[in-house]
Amino acid sequence: MQIIKEPHKLTAIIKSYKKRGKTIGFVPTMGALHNGHVSLIKKARKENNIVVLSIFVNPTQFGPKEDYKKYPRNFSRDSAIAKKTGVDIIFAPEVKDIYKSGFSTYIEETNLSHILEGAIRPDHFRGVTTVVLKLFNTVQPDISYFGQKDYQQAVIIKKMVKDLNLDTEIKVLPTVREKDSLAQSSRNIYLNKEERKSAIVLYSSLIYAKELIENGLTDAEEIKKRMRETITKERLAKIDYIEIREPETLQPVKKITREVVILLAVKFGKVRLIDNVIMN
Amino acid sequence: MQIIKEPHKLTAIIKSYKKRGKTIGFVPTMGALHNGHVSLIKKARKENNIVVLSIFVNPTQFGPKEDYKKYPRNFSRDSAIAKKTGVDIIFAPEVKDIYKSGFSTYIEETNLSHILEGAIRPDHFRGVTTVVLKLFNTVQPDISYFGQKDYQQAVIIKKMVKDLNLDTEIKVLPTVREKDSLAQSSRNIYLNKEERKSAIVLYSSLIYAKELIENGLTDAEEIKKRMRETITKERLAKIDYIEIREPETLQPVKKITREVVILLAVKFGKVRLIDNVIMN
Repeated sequence: MQIIKEPHKLTAIIKSYKKRGKTIGFVPTMGALHNGHVSLIKKARKENNIVVLSIFVNPTQFGPKEDYKKYPRNFSRDSAIAKKTGVDIIFAPEVKDIYKSGFSTYIEETNLSHILEGAIRPDHFRGVTTVVLKLFNTVQPDISYFGQKDYQQAVIIKKMVKDLNLDTEIKVLPTVREKDSLAQSSRNIYLNKEERKSAIVLYSSLIYAKELIENGLTDAEEIKKRMRETITKERLAKIDYIEIREPETLQPVKKITREVVILLAVKFGKVRLIDNVIMN
Repeated sequence: MQIIKEPHKLTAIIKSYKKRGKTIGFVPTMGALHNGHVSLIKKARKENNIVVLSIFVNPTQFGPKEDYKKYPRNFSRDSAIAKKTGVDIIFAPEVKDIYKSGFSTYIEETNLSHILEGAIRPDHFRGVTTVVLKLFNTVQPDISYFGQKDYQQAVIIKKMVKDLNLDTEIKVLPTVREKDSLAQSSRNIYLNKEERKSAIVLYSSLIYAKELIENGLTDAEEIKKRMRETITKERLAKIDYIEIREPETLQPVKKITREVVILLAVKFGKVRLIDNVIMN
């Protein structure tokens, strides 16, 4: 396994692989690898000749009051997981390699980026699309792998790929969960014991909504109301949003007659968690 | 010579060339080809195996009151010039192929795009960077060719390429001029006879500035003042701006001690012309 820091060096290596007809699978991460990441790496391993994992805590996608500084970083642990899971190249640039002095060019997705997560985190998706495009240009992947847990992010990246004629495929893999159903996330370690216990209400409320729909309820407002009641029973839970949306446009749905995505964001103390399910 | 309309078809052809080790030279244009474009095509022809010329009048770089609708379009003439000059592929997409319904992702260069031309044409460079990135992703060129006449555009595109880790080279070729020194431009045909005659003051004032600097004048304000006096003598000329700037950052220069670019924009009736010289 190679560890590369400089973008231009990585691109040179990738190009030499491509010249020999090798395909490139790419898993972009901010490190703090968990089983969700592992599932992405394993899928990339199966489907490509070369697997590149990037580890970069991207400052431009954090708001000024967010956890950029304390975001968990543990390169030796991540690197061991990567090696064990079959990664060929870790791309681990420093901030100054990605955002050179005088950096001034951003990718702005203008429709989907300022709703839901984007309403609460104004520049978040601009940071995400900008760094992901830069990573794509550096890694030149045939296929890139993202987790469904960050549903809106995946939708926006797919939109960027389509809008900007990027010659790469995006695959979104199912959320990997803890035994008690909590979606795996690098931020789960911020939860104290009590908050951690309460946090299972995210998925249980989503499953509850799923059951309601399967039993014939189609009124989105009613479903959201019942989810809200369920979550509010957890003393530590503070709801940011519960939304039922069209899966691609993320537009609100009133009456559920076809596929929807149910998304929610809930705070436990200072820790904000998101989760979602797709309902066919 | 092939003529291709659909972006994905062009990308497929390009990829098959690349697999065979061919290099791709790219000349992006809005059509209405003149000798400036011809010089770019000829250079691309010399330096690459395959030459792609795009012809696309890009709506997103025109302001609401600008000449998008009446911008000169003459595909059969352009196509004949392209063939004669050695183009292998004309990429001539329709607007709906480039901006699909629901298009929402833009490239925003934030430092250089709102000064000079960008101060007068607020969304112009956003439209330029967005379409150029889309074209680059579609054509996947080794080298792309731009004219120095649109100096600020060339600087911004180079900045985008650097900031976004694009794996392509940008070459900027000297402005090609009419016999009387007017920079070749597709918009010159808008000038009436009298305006056309007056328009040579653009370059003559730039040459005058060059002489002043060569003779030891270093005060940018004084040089601009003398240029203004020269241009104002032309009854039909209305100055938008005369600026002396640092060539890469486009920041104002007060005392000329090293390389600068002198840029100006002048209106003749309803026709707005730009020109520039680089002073070593």
